[in-house]
Amino acid sequence: MLLLKEKIINEGVVVNNSILKVDAFLNHQIDPELMMELGREFSQRFAGKNVTKILTIESSGIAVALTTALFFHVPVVFARKQKSSIMNENSYSTQVFSFTKNTTNNVSVLKKFLPPNENILILDDFLANGEAAMGLAELVRQAGSRVVGIGIVIEKSFQPGRRRLLEAGYQVEALARIKAFENGRILFADDNE
Amino acid sequence: MLLLKEKIINEGVVVNNSILKVDAFLNHQIDPELMMELGREFSQRFAGKNVTKILTIESSGIAVALTTALFFHVPVVFARKQKSSIMNENSYSTQVFSFTKNTTNNVSVLKKFLPPNENILILDDFLANGEAAMGLAELVRQAGSRVVGIGIVIEKSFQPGRRRLLEAGYQVEALARIKAFENGRILFADDNE
Repeated sequence: MLLLKEKIINEGVVVNNSILKVDAFLNHQIDPELMMELGREFSQRFAGKNVTKILTIESSGIAVALTTALFFHVPVVFARKQKSSIMNENSYSTQVFSFTKNTTNNVSVLKKFLPPNENILILDDFLANGEAAMGLAELVRQAGSRVVGIGIVIEKSFQPGRRRLLEAGYQVEALARIKAFENGRILFADDNE
Repeated sequence: MLLLKEKIINEGVVVNNSILKVDAFLNHQIDPELMMELGREFSQRFAGKNVTKILTIESSGIAVALTTALFFHVPVVFARKQKSSIMNENSYSTQVFSFTKNTTNNVSVLKKFLPPNENILILDDFLANGEAAMGLAELVRQAGSRVVGIGIVIEKSFQPGRRRLLEAGYQVEALARIKAFENGRILFADDNE
């Protein structure tokens, strides 16, 4: 998605060979018009999937999940992250490891907001190792619902996340795919790659 | 705001005499069309304030901050909550006590996203004791910017938050004001009260 790539080039900060900061428009400061365009794009890429609910994870997935939900006219549910694993009979939960922060979070959603037999679109800001997306898909599995697609704003295609998600049988759509950082420069993967 | 009051009556759950759960549409599951209407309402109530940026706090403030920002055509910044207080020269930060959870969080925002001389609209989902809103206002003060208003989705007017914010000189607009819970029933404060 050209608009997003331009934004990443203009406002993203390459920290090192694996970390890109996009807190200027995506996950600390948020550009609302850009979020609407990302939502429009996701709604086109997953059109015809009969999406009935969008599942994301706090906090950085909420904005794009909301704008995508405006196009699909469906509710959003965001999973909660906690350091401690509090088992709760009212919730579905799973563990998600963060390679960036080297921590494991308990990720959970109240059962009443993730009923069975729904067509769930999973959205998140980043795809690297696929831990968060796989965790959200696991919550959907526990609920007895279907994952009809996984939408990612920025994919680091040099990390194994996409392969894991494809091997698990999911349709993955990333709006910008980064294949490498070279001397602080961002190299995008070809969209058809 | 009638639409919001109806939503609270139909989907809110009164847990006890001070706690109302609205996780069906505001802070776990999110109703995107409702968020747009709340954003429209805030944009009308704070029209003429020359809002240049919206400040909220993760996670439950993000959705309504985003839709309000769409009407004002300004960016959103959401403050981060952390259990530990990590001093960081790149951030403004303050302590916010949660009466509900009986915990203190460190709330921070990167300095580069909260520059001086901006007209900041603070938005949050709930107003009870006013801790979060006062904390956000403190970040704005540290930045050398102005708070041009504080918008709240649901106010519990039987708690002291509004009084604290008014005494500090802020314009407070709450879209639904609850004056009491009576035998599980929600009593709204008159809007002109």
